[in-house]
Amino acid sequence: MTADTCPIVPDHPLPEPAARHEVLRVKAGVAAHTGDSLAEEVPVALVYNGISHAVMMATPADLEDFALGFSLTEGLIDHAGECYGIDIEAVNGGVAVQLEVASRAFVALKERRRSLAGRTGCGLCGVDSLDQVYRALPPQAGTQVLTGAAIRGALAALPARQALNRVTGATHAAAWCDADGTLKVAREDVGRHNALDKVVGALARQPDLREGDGFALVTSRVSVEMVQKAAMAGAFAIVGVSAPTAAAVRMAEGAGMVLVAFARGEQFVCYAGQDRLVP
Amino acid sequence: MTADTCPIVPDHPLPEPAARHEVLRVKAGVAAHTGDSLAEEVPVALVYNGISHAVMMATPADLEDFALGFSLTEGLIDHAGECYGIDIEAVNGGVAVQLEVASRAFVALKERRRSLAGRTGCGLCGVDSLDQVYRALPPQAGTQVLTGAAIRGALAALPARQALNRVTGATHAAAWCDADGTLKVAREDVGRHNALDKVVGALARQPDLREGDGFALVTSRVSVEMVQKAAMAGAFAIVGVSAPTAAAVRMAEGAGMVLVAFARGEQFVCYAGQDRLVP
Repeated sequence: MTADTCPIVPDHPLPEPAARHEVLRVKAGVAAHTGDSLAEEVPVALVYNGISHAVMMATPADLEDFALGFSLTEGLIDHAGECYGIDIEAVNGGVAVQLEVASRAFVALKERRRSLAGRTGCGLCGVDSLDQVYRALPPQAGTQVLTGAAIRGALAALPARQALNRVTGATHAAAWCDADGTLKVAREDVGRHNALDKVVGALARQPDLREGDGFALVTSRVSVEMVQKAAMAGAFAIVGVSAPTAAAVRMAEGAGMVLVAFARGEQFVCYAGQDRLVP
Repeated sequence: MTADTCPIVPDHPLPEPAARHEVLRVKAGVAAHTGDSLAEEVPVALVYNGISHAVMMATPADLEDFALGFSLTEGLIDHAGECYGIDIEAVNGGVAVQLEVASRAFVALKERRRSLAGRTGCGLCGVDSLDQVYRALPPQAGTQVLTGAAIRGALAALPARQALNRVTGATHAAAWCDADGTLKVAREDVGRHNALDKVVGALARQPDLREGDGFALVTSRVSVEMVQKAAMAGAFAIVGVSAPTAAAVRMAEGAGMVLVAFARGEQFVCYAGQDRLVP
């Protein structure tokens, strides 16, 4: 088996696109346990004539459409007739989509791959196969408590640091906050992963900004890559303004992190580490 | 020069993170010309000890933070001390960030690259260097007109097709619409690029759904990759619910596409192809 082949065995059912999860919903300091539906997010490997070309996090639905559309919009095939067949296999850790494409397209793909430099823009950097998507994360002490006051304080402080978004309405922001919610550094970017990377880089360049435990605040959804990046930076929690995914919640639980999402004004929802959340 | 080296020449100023643009703002059928600020979005190549590792679309600000943070959160270096220097070069077509990293990190990076399969999740698929980011797009006839009625009709029809987002609040949608705004196919995904790819794939699998010219409707921001994918699918326009980027507007102009963004209810803003927009 070479690194190019896709070492996956079909032995699992295709995940549902949504999953139920018990959450702690907090409104103006009052907490209530309730159920919530989360969007599933799974690594999908696109495999052309047996060779894995791309792994992307995606919703496990309409994957034949996805595979054919990706092949067309990325110029891997010139027209739908160059795709002879699409086979979806749910495998341990994700989904493998096997495409059979015309020789012309496959030769072009191999030629293109030969000169690839292995770049990406979504957080799945250097992922070689499905089972490498979820990399080992540094262990968390798992003791620091996240308070509602810290979340509200950080949320209130963020808009003043979003100068670019104020004029463009197009950029995400990420911030690093002390456990008490003091916003230590914030950065903006059109990409949410990039904004968080900028925060981590800024902290690394100014280590005195970081005192004790801290959490990441992001204006975006909380997906797998956002939890991974926050965990790599040693955050004890991640707070997002928009929705989390089911896979991100599982990852935060595994990493011993508190995950809060839909954090807006006086409200937020805790999806992971609820025993360390003080409303 | 091998495919691994970064063939870029520093000869341009670093772009500003925001750019002014003349737009046509439409509210309840009444149009007004005005100015708007757009977030800039440029390809940024991260080059480690002379070898290009990743190209990402990003906001051209705080790029030292970005490069260091990316290196840390992606596990390319273990700590900031393994990065000896960061040099930012604005080049034709983007920005090259040259990082000098410790031998240990570079050996690990080269080992990892050797087994890379060239995957990605953001639309920069198979991009080998900065000057390959903007690939040639199929020519548009450039004659089809986009009406406010079509935009409003498509917008009104979309929520009923967002079943997954209704329960999760976490997914994007994309749709293909006839020139009159009739919504022909819609798909959802946690990733906005994926949702659009699914639409393109669904159209390719059911060619009878497509009658004459059509446009793409997306619930997300309109960035370079979204315009690229819509253009590859032959859309004469792209309509987004959220903000566009400056680079996406330039790309739409170059491809002869109409670009509408901030499309919500009775309002929208036309950024490209204003002479083909009937309010």
